[in-house]
Amino acid sequence: MYNIAILGFGVVGCGTAEVLTANKESIKAKCGEEINLKHILDIRSFPGSRFESIITQDADEVFDDKELDCCVETIGGAKIAYEFTKRALSNGISVVTSNKELVSTKGPELLKIAEENNCSYLFEAAVGGGIPLIRPLYRCLAANRIIKIEGIVNGTTNYILYSMLNKGISYEEALKSAQQNGYAEADPTADVEGIDAQRKLSILSSIAMEGVYVSPSEIRTRGITAVTLDDIEYAESVGCQIKLLACFKRIGDKCASYVMPHFVSRDMMLGNVDDVFNAVSVEGDFVGEALFYGRGAGSLPTASAVCGDVIELAAGGKSEFVRPWTIPSSSVVIPYEEVENSFIFWNISDISVFDALETENIGEAVVVKNITDATAKELAGSAGASVMNYLG
Amino acid sequence: MYNIAILGFGVVGCGTAEVLTANKESIKAKCGEEINLKHILDIRSFPGSRFESIITQDADEVFDDKELDCCVETIGGAKIAYEFTKRALSNGISVVTSNKELVSTKGPELLKIAEENNCSYLFEAAVGGGIPLIRPLYRCLAANRIIKIEGIVNGTTNYILYSMLNKGISYEEALKSAQQNGYAEADPTADVEGIDAQRKLSILSSIAMEGVYVSPSEIRTRGITAVTLDDIEYAESVGCQIKLLACFKRIGDKCASYVMPHFVSRDMMLGNVDDVFNAVSVEGDFVGEALFYGRGAGSLPTASAVCGDVIELAAGGKSEFVRPWTIPSSSVVIPYEEVENSFIFWNISDISVFDALETENIGEAVVVKNITDATAKELAGSAGASVMNYLG
Repeated sequence: MYNIAILGFGVVGCGTAEVLTANKESIKAKCGEEINLKHILDIRSFPGSRFESIITQDADEVFDDKELDCCVETIGGAKIAYEFTKRALSNGISVVTSNKELVSTKGPELLKIAEENNCSYLFEAAVGGGIPLIRPLYRCLAANRIIKIEGIVNGTTNYILYSMLNKGISYEEALKSAQQNGYAEADPTADVEGIDAQRKLSILSSIAMEGVYVSPSEIRTRGITAVTLDDIEYAESVGCQIKLLACFKRIGDKCASYVMPHFVSRDMMLGNVDDVFNAVSVEGDFVGEALFYGRGAGSLPTASAVCGDVIELAAGGKSEFVRPWTIPSSSVVIPYEEVENSFIFWNISDISVFDALETENIGEAVVVKNITDATAKELAGSAGASVMNYLG
Repeated sequence: MYNIAILGFGVVGCGTAEVLTANKESIKAKCGEEINLKHILDIRSFPGSRFESIITQDADEVFDDKELDCCVETIGGAKIAYEFTKRALSNGISVVTSNKELVSTKGPELLKIAEENNCSYLFEAAVGGGIPLIRPLYRCLAANRIIKIEGIVNGTTNYILYSMLNKGISYEEALKSAQQNGYAEADPTADVEGIDAQRKLSILSSIAMEGVYVSPSEIRTRGITAVTLDDIEYAESVGCQIKLLACFKRIGDKCASYVMPHFVSRDMMLGNVDDVFNAVSVEGDFVGEALFYGRGAGSLPTASAVCGDVIELAAGGKSEFVRPWTIPSSSVVIPYEEVENSFIFWNISDISVFDALETENIGEAVVVKNITDATAKELAGSAGASVMNYLG
């Protein structure tokens, strides 16, 4: 019997209870042990819920339970979730989470507490929702040095950009539609300003840097609020879609790590990721490109990932694959100003600005490779052109 | 110190030695142990190789080595590889392999021997080359019942079909080009007749059926030798590509499992998988669709997957996640004749044949859903039409 508690009975917490209940028998066969949902901790009460008998508002009842093996933390945020996670791990209770904010801001500390108390802190669900990503990176690709990551890691913004193109509507209308469909929150800031993507990229970057922590604060981030329908329609006319990409590049012992809207060529798999889907392309020095695609959010897909972590712990006790992260004495992130990238220029007033440069033409747009953001802005200014990062 | 031997110093064996050597330090950091390549067993000798000092022709030297922890079997085939794998596992030495023929034909027996001798038989590299697939299926998606798998799992045939379209050449010319580029063997039968895909689907099906073994002999298979340039160009004209798909569908406690060329709509991610790339789409009851894409073959990508397995074993000793497969007393595979699928009809002489049916038109082609292969052939005969399986 492997006893677990769910902390926070919201969207993902409910999904987790549902998945564990629905596939109880086959999960037991896979673990060799029954997973017993013993407590659900929430400040709210849920009269009439079929889980009512195990729902409690008393944190002591959960964390002082000597029989508890694992907590599923689906509270979100970095306040009460942080306190509860520390308390569980300090008591030797493993924690599985979908909380990207907490992992990205407190990962080094929490992984250390887990190690010191001989338990695990796992977070497959924190990036890419249900898409297998964290474990494949740590395990299947362990023999590789990760050279590059490019990912669509926020479903809300992908839905907004896709809706603008698909329905020919403005950013504001698409945001409203996302909110009506439950894909965006009332306050959409974290999604549309790229903060959610930044947190996820912090996690991916820290893994790709083999445990050298990359903080969200080091990741230059631009959201999609300035993207217009004109931009999107222009992109389509040159065989591209505009996507908000989270990008990591290994450069020697350092890395570049940033979140920016990009023109992405439809020749790339990433240029064909529509609707609320997520996809992350990873390049390793030996595997070449591997790409992971699926539903990056939602109650049940995210719960699927949470439960995968719980099942691994139930089957094998402590899991060794997530190693502690260390905070480097000086940042390993190269300032975005110094990073060279590809940019696309369009609506060009003065094409002669590009005469002396090595360029590639895509329709009437011009791509310039290996220039800094500042140079790109300067060129755009001189040429009276629009500019955006480019992947193709 | 974790001591390994490579059995068979061919394409994947050499790649494995190269990966382990190139990333030795970072692999050591991840394992907490040094992986020591102690023996390479091959009937050939390799004078001048930098690994010459550890290459041996003497199998006893390898299998009687009490310090040996793991063998990497990259011999291929099901004869000597089978004998060597049994010998290693019987001695309690774990085996990691890329050998789909052996896993698909002898998996139940070999997994049982591994379990009896408290060691592991791992095969991440056997399907999808370097693409993380086996471990994500077993672990990340463990909470799901796998409902459907659709995969492009053979790079050779994908290269041939893509070249025919891209260069406007015949099947014969494309095959020759694949052979010249090292993507097809001198005898291409196993690839072009779908046998390689069949073996891989046997492995995927056995995992999806939660360890109930699906033998390659139960998988109805059609290759690509009958696909013409006309077919491919027609597919393109209706927004599709022809792909050889390995398909699994869960139907109650049974399954359908078959390999067939398909018209695949470009609206699907699978319709955009070009060149030698592989992609496998998996549908779980909670995660929805997850798709894995990358290089399905080649020395270094495959070695990357082999080394991922070795690293997991070196870090944690025995690995529990691959559970034994059992051979069912009666087949769980529904005969292909009884399976209902979607088919596309084109070059139609008599369109009235479809009048009474529920159809969907794609250009001048007609899609009929939920019919058997026999019904599809009958309809095609009556209508004087070409027909193929359809995914869209």
